[in-house]
Amino acid sequence: MSTPVGRLYLVPAPLDFGCAHQSPLEESMPLQTLRIAASLQHWVCENAKSTRAYLKRVGEVVPLHTPIQAQTLQELPREVHKKGDHQGGFDARPLLAAAMQGHAMGLVSEAGMPAVADPGASVVRAAHQLGLHVVPLVGPASLLLALAASGLNGQNFAFVGYVPSDPTERAQSVKSLEALALKTQQTQLFIETPYRNQALLATLLQTLQPSTRLATSSGLTLSDGVNLSADVKTWRQRGWVLNNATPTVFAIGP
Amino acid sequence: MSTPVGRLYLVPAPLDFGCAHQSPLEESMPLQTLRIAASLQHWVCENAKSTRAYLKRVGEVVPLHTPIQAQTLQELPREVHKKGDHQGGFDARPLLAAAMQGHAMGLVSEAGMPAVADPGASVVRAAHQLGLHVVPLVGPASLLLALAASGLNGQNFAFVGYVPSDPTERAQSVKSLEALALKTQQTQLFIETPYRNQALLATLLQTLQPSTRLATSSGLTLSDGVNLSADVKTWRQRGWVLNNATPTVFAIGP
Repeated sequence: MSTPVGRLYLVPAPLDFGCAHQSPLEESMPLQTLRIAASLQHWVCENAKSTRAYLKRVGEVVPLHTPIQAQTLQELPREVHKKGDHQGGFDARPLLAAAMQGHAMGLVSEAGMPAVADPGASVVRAAHQLGLHVVPLVGPASLLLALAASGLNGQNFAFVGYVPSDPTERAQSVKSLEALALKTQQTQLFIETPYRNQALLATLLQTLQPSTRLATSSGLTLSDGVNLSADVKTWRQRGWVLNNATPTVFAIGP
Repeated sequence: MSTPVGRLYLVPAPLDFGCAHQSPLEESMPLQTLRIAASLQHWVCENAKSTRAYLKRVGEVVPLHTPIQAQTLQELPREVHKKGDHQGGFDARPLLAAAMQGHAMGLVSEAGMPAVADPGASVVRAAHQLGLHVVPLVGPASLLLALAASGLNGQNFAFVGYVPSDPTERAQSVKSLEALALKTQQTQLFIETPYRNQALLATLLQTLQPSTRLATSSGLTLSDGVNLSADVKTWRQRGWVLNNATPTVFAIGP
């Protein structure tokens, strides 16, 4: 008798993690995603506490099949959180034991798509290795929302993660990203810890050429979200500032 | 008396465009996106006919404020469709006249997010130039769904659009994308017209190194969608094939 093939659902989380105002989940998540999230009882997550808070919100829209306290939430170890876990150093297969018994499992991160600018790739790799079905679910994807709102080249783009926090290294990094974007027409997207938004913006406005286009998307999916896009010369003239508390995606290009 | 600031909503479309089976819209689109789409009467679109078909589906979930035949649908000119329209050659400001009068407008493409691997960037740029609010709405984003499902590096990735259709050029392009991915750890995502899926896969399996990881996502958001990810050696052993009728996203990396 063969065991049915298990599934790993990649479950997106809303982008309002840690924000003061949260909007109803059904505004930014398709019903199908919420229905599937509500049906699961085995999870691999970045943080169990915030996953429980998310599941509580899911349950307010679609009743949970299993009470939260009866669900299994396995956290990814801390060492895979920061640098990414796609390199095969961490064997995530033991986390997928329930799926190997035929259960559907969910992978979830703090905000947005798991394994995109977030940990989880090791779990997805392990699922493929074990022959599980991997099914990504639709939800808010901050990088693509920001790219669309930028008006920059959406036919060729790159996301390069966090820029360095050291001011000198940050300026160098920004300069080389600009050179690449201008040479190849490839939009360069990057992020920074929110409390350094304004510092990063200052570096960008000092470092970039006046004709380079700079776009920022802050508070995506929130009612007070702001998407700005203009050449650097216009940015300087307008004196636009960023909020140091709101997650922001930055993009530059010709 | 000042005119209220108009808005340009970036309205995602479902990914089942042209597919034999379509699933209910509310499965892949958040209610908020459908509500806003149902409230608009002024559109800029890639194709008016398919936009009308999409609006008909929207209206089956949320009643349209304005009957389709009373809505204004302006098509982007053909010349901006193929190569992208982010370079400023096309002035889209006249298309936004209704927004300048204070109306909310929608920008929509055939599938997925407008202006991402699709035309529309010229309209977004024009909206920023005119001081309109640009608001991207959540919906299916095939590139990020594919990236998450690949297990490849999601902290650093690039989408490079279509690979060349000429076999020799295609092999060269694949080789240099692989070299870049292995050197920089940057996942490389690309697409091909569906009827060449199997030809592109053949080139990939002939050209890539056995240890390089190759992932494909076909039929994203469809019930018969398939996400595959393994090293090239495993791909060759398994003899996996692709459907030449299903839109597919390809990704390679270490």
